[in-house]
Amino acid sequence: MKSIATLSLVLLGASLALVLKPLLWLHPPAAPGLWSVYDATFRSAKYVDLTHTITPQIPVWEGFGPPAFSPAIAGRDIPGFIRKGERFTYEKHGFEAMRYALSTDQLGTQLDPPAHWAPEYPAIDELPATYAIRPLVVIDISQQVQADYGYSLQVSDIARFEQHYGRIPAGSVVFVRSDWSKDWPDPALATRHPFPGVSLAALKFLHLERHILFHGHEPLDTDATPTLEGESWLMHHGYAQAEGVANLDKVPPVGALVAIGFPKLGGGTGGYARYIAICPPDWKYGVSSSQIAEAPLPRSDKPLVFDASAGMRVRK
Amino acid sequence: MKSIATLSLVLLGASLALVLKPLLWLHPPAAPGLWSVYDATFRSAKYVDLTHTITPQIPVWEGFGPPAFSPAIAGRDIPGFIRKGERFTYEKHGFEAMRYALSTDQLGTQLDPPAHWAPEYPAIDELPATYAIRPLVVIDISQQVQADYGYSLQVSDIARFEQHYGRIPAGSVVFVRSDWSKDWPDPALATRHPFPGVSLAALKFLHLERHILFHGHEPLDTDATPTLEGESWLMHHGYAQAEGVANLDKVPPVGALVAIGFPKLGGGTGGYARYIAICPPDWKYGVSSSQIAEAPLPRSDKPLVFDASAGMRVRK
Repeated sequence: MKSIATLSLVLLGASLALVLKPLLWLHPPAAPGLWSVYDATFRSAKYVDLTHTITPQIPVWEGFGPPAFSPAIAGRDIPGFIRKGERFTYEKHGFEAMRYALSTDQLGTQLDPPAHWAPEYPAIDELPATYAIRPLVVIDISQQVQADYGYSLQVSDIARFEQHYGRIPAGSVVFVRSDWSKDWPDPALATRHPFPGVSLAALKFLHLERHILFHGHEPLDTDATPTLEGESWLMHHGYAQAEGVANLDKVPPVGALVAIGFPKLGGGTGGYARYIAICPPDWKYGVSSSQIAEAPLPRSDKPLVFDASAGMRVRK
Repeated sequence: MKSIATLSLVLLGASLALVLKPLLWLHPPAAPGLWSVYDATFRSAKYVDLTHTITPQIPVWEGFGPPAFSPAIAGRDIPGFIRKGERFTYEKHGFEAMRYALSTDQLGTQLDPPAHWAPEYPAIDELPATYAIRPLVVIDISQQVQADYGYSLQVSDIARFEQHYGRIPAGSVVFVRSDWSKDWPDPALATRHPFPGVSLAALKFLHLERHILFHGHEPLDTDATPTLEGESWLMHHGYAQAEGVANLDKVPPVGALVAIGFPKLGGGTGGYARYIAICPPDWKYGVSSSQIAEAPLPRSDKPLVFDASAGMRVRK
């Protein structure tokens, strides 16, 4: 029996070593807390920006004016340094800064808090800190939209998606791919009607049956109904939503995460948002940290200068 | 020998089952790609906001004026709906929005791209998408600052930190806790001099020896030297930096991650940033998704209204 016990122990040891090795690789002892997760997953992940660049030329809903950018000027005299109203320059003052006149918070890629329509619900700065990173679901209706530009996401599209990819997880962010954003930044997008939408029934299903965190779409409105019934229902029931989302053809339908960022403007009714998809390392699109210069950042041959005709800083 | 082989297989099976069980728990088959990471780590993590709320009253460097907030108005006539210059209201139009006059992009909690000082280096919209989530290191100099308010982080402080907590990982974000932000939003902070800083030698060590992504500090400037030598060195060498960071006493020195977000303003020289620390589930501060109402968000008894004396929307 001694030899049986010995052999069993040897086999047990070998099988434990075999199975423990990947566990140790996932959790090297030197990385405390969530750093091990970063090392195992995020260091080699592929990052895809889902955000439009905000410029004075982007499409904005016709009721609001466009934003205006200009170089920052001195708000007061600082003796021996600058006079009130004078522009800060790299040459004289060592730095430059920007001044923004933003006619609306409904600009570019957005995160609408419900206070945009319903003042009894949270403003942008009242959203909880847990709105930071989430599972990302991308439902593709671009084929339906090619056949009918005014198509809206239906509950049947969600059912078909779940048949292929499994149940949409609670707490996830669900973005609807329509390819509307392929024409961005054509100013005509601001008035093009109809446009691809998300039906009220689909929004109710996603929130009431699947308990998602929020949905997002490529156009600047949720649907083309006269009363904007989808956005109205969301906001008046305490739900946020994303608008003006981009690059949804560059992320997988399931398995990616989305990092959610926006400035914390007190009492704000809209969010100038940043959405970045974090995709598995073997995903075909996006960049990973190891592929690019991050710190220091790359130097350009063309300096950034304020161009009055573009109304913004450009490289030339 | 047959019985030995059988016994060994039984033992092997039992040991495999024992070791595989936690593996299966970490990676349930239903969660594809990075969703399993979310389920295992982020769903129960504690989120701590490291960001100040931007209001018209926050401290701003004296050379810039304060920001002004006002309700959005119509940029043009829309027959039957609104006249140019008229304010959008919940009652008449169904929604409201905000209008911002931001005298500077150096406002509140920031991410400075190097183009703030050096136009040959990236603007805020040129930072790569990989600036999204990172290991967070917090070095505490609050004791030194209590004894000497003009104290700056030294290389010796970093060496002491590493003796306790291990080597600072490449690609991490390093925030320096001074407790300067405890007096926020006292307007006196804008002119208080000296203030807690980060020495040029410490910045060089963090970037050239540890290869961090960027560092951050609580005050609105990197150091109190007449030439702002630390910020000047960073920007002219292609490094970004965070300013106006808050709540560093609520996050662990090692083991947390930080989510980094900011709007993508074309050619922008500063970032209205959002930093959210993601801490292990057993961390004593912060909120987790399961503890709060996320969707729908909680309804307030006090509606959000624009208050002319505060210059912003407040609840009352």
